[in-house]
Amino acid sequence: MSANTPAQPVRARLPRGFGDRGPAEILATNRMLDAIRASYELHGFEAVETPFLEYTETLGKFLPDTDRPNEGVFSMQDDDEQWMSLRYDLTAPLARYVAENFDKLPKPYRSYRMGWVFRNEKPGPGRFRQFMQFDADTVGSASVAADAEICMMAADTLERLGVKRGDYVIKVNNRKVLDGVMEAIGLGGEANAGRRLTVLRAIDKLDRLGPDGVRLLLGDGRKDESGDFTKGAGLDDEQIEKIMQVFSLEMNISDDIAKDKEFGNMLDAEKISALTRERVRAEGMIGRLVRDFSNSDLAQAGIRELESIWKILVTAGYNDGRIRIDPSVVRGLEYYTGPVYEAELTFEVKGEDGKPVRFGSVGGGGRYDGLVARFRAEPVPATGFSIGVSRLFSALKAMNSPIVRADDARGPVVVLAMDKDQAGPTLAMVQKLRAAGVAAEMYLGASGMNAQLKYADKRKSICAVIQGSNEREKGEVAIRDLVLGAELAAGTKDRADYLELRQKAQFTVAESKLVEAVQEVLARHRG
Amino acid sequence: MSANTPAQPVRARLPRGFGDRGPAEILATNRMLDAIRASYELHGFEAVETPFLEYTETLGKFLPDTDRPNEGVFSMQDDDEQWMSLRYDLTAPLARYVAENFDKLPKPYRSYRMGWVFRNEKPGPGRFRQFMQFDADTVGSASVAADAEICMMAADTLERLGVKRGDYVIKVNNRKVLDGVMEAIGLGGEANAGRRLTVLRAIDKLDRLGPDGVRLLLGDGRKDESGDFTKGAGLDDEQIEKIMQVFSLEMNISDDIAKDKEFGNMLDAEKISALTRERVRAEGMIGRLVRDFSNSDLAQAGIRELESIWKILVTAGYNDGRIRIDPSVVRGLEYYTGPVYEAELTFEVKGEDGKPVRFGSVGGGGRYDGLVARFRAEPVPATGFSIGVSRLFSALKAMNSPIVRADDARGPVVVLAMDKDQAGPTLAMVQKLRAAGVAAEMYLGASGMNAQLKYADKRKSICAVIQGSNEREKGEVAIRDLVLGAELAAGTKDRADYLELRQKAQFTVAESKLVEAVQEVLARHRG
Repeated sequence: MSANTPAQPVRARLPRGFGDRGPAEILATNRMLDAIRASYELHGFEAVETPFLEYTETLGKFLPDTDRPNEGVFSMQDDDEQWMSLRYDLTAPLARYVAENFDKLPKPYRSYRMGWVFRNEKPGPGRFRQFMQFDADTVGSASVAADAEICMMAADTLERLGVKRGDYVIKVNNRKVLDGVMEAIGLGGEANAGRRLTVLRAIDKLDRLGPDGVRLLLGDGRKDESGDFTKGAGLDDEQIEKIMQVFSLEMNISDDIAKDKEFGNMLDAEKISALTRERVRAEGMIGRLVRDFSNSDLAQAGIRELESIWKILVTAGYNDGRIRIDPSVVRGLEYYTGPVYEAELTFEVKGEDGKPVRFGSVGGGGRYDGLVARFRAEPVPATGFSIGVSRLFSALKAMNSPIVRADDARGPVVVLAMDKDQAGPTLAMVQKLRAAGVAAEMYLGASGMNAQLKYADKRKSICAVIQGSNEREKGEVAIRDLVLGAELAAGTKDRADYLELRQKAQFTVAESKLVEAVQEVLARHRG
Repeated sequence: MSANTPAQPVRARLPRGFGDRGPAEILATNRMLDAIRASYELHGFEAVETPFLEYTETLGKFLPDTDRPNEGVFSMQDDDEQWMSLRYDLTAPLARYVAENFDKLPKPYRSYRMGWVFRNEKPGPGRFRQFMQFDADTVGSASVAADAEICMMAADTLERLGVKRGDYVIKVNNRKVLDGVMEAIGLGGEANAGRRLTVLRAIDKLDRLGPDGVRLLLGDGRKDESGDFTKGAGLDDEQIEKIMQVFSLEMNISDDIAKDKEFGNMLDAEKISALTRERVRAEGMIGRLVRDFSNSDLAQAGIRELESIWKILVTAGYNDGRIRIDPSVVRGLEYYTGPVYEAELTFEVKGEDGKPVRFGSVGGGGRYDGLVARFRAEPVPATGFSIGVSRLFSALKAMNSPIVRADDARGPVVVLAMDKDQAGPTLAMVQKLRAAGVAAEMYLGASGMNAQLKYADKRKSICAVIQGSNEREKGEVAIRDLVLGAELAAGTKDRADYLELRQKAQFTVAESKLVEAVQEVLARHRG
């Protein structure tokens, strides 16, 4: 390129998988985050924040959805050549934080945090490389009461966000049941860690692929619609069926209870309350688990924990369908060691093909007793729950929850700049409005009145203030209701009250009445 | 290492220059950020957010404090080998955002955003590699009214944060004055860009190094106390004095005005108002600038812009010392093209040596008409202001502003777990408190009563609720005021009201009065 070639402009674009956020989305998301924060604080959790970068070895090799350590993470070298990575979740940094500050933290340590996390993966529709999580964790309590509490808090939080009871369910399981089964079929020990992870990820796809798809992934592997082949866990048929038994329980349990004479009469929908039905269901399921997995001590320990959680839920009255025991929940992460839980929205939305689909998971978590122990000689029990903020936000949008409604992202009152030599008086009007707490600005530019009004429309302003020479001479000011103006322009000329509306859409008041008149117009359009 | 060697625990530590934040700091910072946000929205600015990573070429070569492009930035390669960087400020990403969304944005486009930015530099005391900025920008208005407005907004915002009038000053200058001088001494043109930047950075250190230190940096260079040598701009004595002339103006102007007969009588502190004094000062300064730099058209254009800004400030009444014209402000960034401004706190705090020092700069900005133009064929005028959030936070702490007071970061009410078989009733009390909006939790663990009360103290809880078997049998519950309890323990036994205090510090009520009794104790300690 010769020195005379003008510099080519740089292309303004974002890397794929990253997005900008405008005012309406920021406002609505913040309102949602505030509600979650208030709920978590009500439950006794306190805020904590860690930085975006950590030493790569600190974050460990617990990344979901990839088999090789640290693949999928954004990493870079420090000035002294140490590798650092952008956090891929909020749990690994919390484990570092707790280990580093162990002695000065209260125990149990109950904390929450929200923040952006990063994945260096192929982006796709709805799959971002930067996204937000909102976590709550209890570290230092081995009691399943801590797990039960987090499940109840998840339920309370969804309701605070406007999700109605019956439109969601918190599903609880215990990883030890599956781990016990895997042990029993010869998948125990460090040497089989990779295969166990493949099994976990296969089961985690039950919802999407169905039992037959999962069977393929547990066996030799599965080819998807696009022809891509995913290698399976390489189990034989007998092993596969032992594992599938855990997940067919949900389907079988109803038959099982139905055949049971003791519960026979209670199953008539007319006769029993939802509370009783849920209790019968859960207790039947626990009984069935105890019988089916009697050959594994680990599985039995897991079932006893599930039973303890259930008792707490019954005591607290959350056994009315808000929280259910569901052996199909596994969570795809390797590091869970006990109870696992998942928050699902059960109401239906229109899918891509127009058919109704359940919204599905918006968060989940579980017990990870080994994560803090990586940094310490002693084991540190911990359990936590993570909300996928964008998914939850989409869900609340889909159900039209007032908490994420965007229509109040209104722009400021725009005071038009009519005469260049009147900047002083114009600015004075703006300052009066601001002093009364009304967001306002003077139009900055040299455009004509129409362009200025168009600007105010683009800002979604509710009203504009105009003082041309006519008004100024009379000591008056014109107030224009832009919302009403837009309605009129949209063609309500035939309305009987057209003249009255037009009168309301723009009117003149004495300059001394500016603030009151503006506030009146704002009040018209703010419930 | 043999396979039998137990795995060495990973060391729990953060990379240098990064920090964690606890609940008190998060709460106080959020309150400060909310106040800034409210102020900016009142002024008609709307929120926008960009992601943390951008293509490296998008961010450009405008990093402060380094001479080589992109040094000091955290960069990594994308999966398709493109370089991406963590944003080092919020201005470069905004320029990309505006260029990418140019047609759909209202113009002028007034926006604000806060966020973490990253510098891959040697960390030091108070010098972090991740820190927060809060920016406001007006893009698409070439009028200095936009600059004046941002300066006034900066003043309003500081006052909203509790900084008293007189304890801060917004200093305004125009980069064209210095650029004109540099042009006049032969430092114009693309070939001298590097030397101009060295000059800018030298002048930016005027506060810290004094005129003699700056002279060295403008000449051959300067050796600091530690013996490190910084190469200078290589100017000769005559060039150096031409540049120093711009900055000695502040000192000279008072003498100048003092000698001026016209203003002579007005300078008596008893006779004139601050408003008049400031006006005399500013207008004297502008007159002096016009005379001193008559040989540069560029400098004259800058002085005319300064004069226009001053007129707006006078109209709006901000010429009372809140905003001042100060030719010593340059801002170290290469990309400024016109007005530059700096927010300084003028009150004194104790320095490291115990002597009082002025707090100094907490933010600044200026006009950067070339930054968006990098992405477009046409120039796009823009001006913006950036607050250093941590510095401002420290300042508000130092002046004990209520907005950052941390003492209300109180923990939840802790309901003690006295009997393992009473988890149900204990949980029921917790739920009652939460239903009344009181943050509460059941102690999760098997510790004795003293350890549980110690936990509540560590959480900074105001009160604890205790129901042992004694209370339970009587249908009662004990409320313990932990704040009062701590005061008593600190040794007020001699006080006449000791017994009364002890009575208040722990008392028993009927279980049905639990919520009211707890709220009463909370109210004692929350203003």
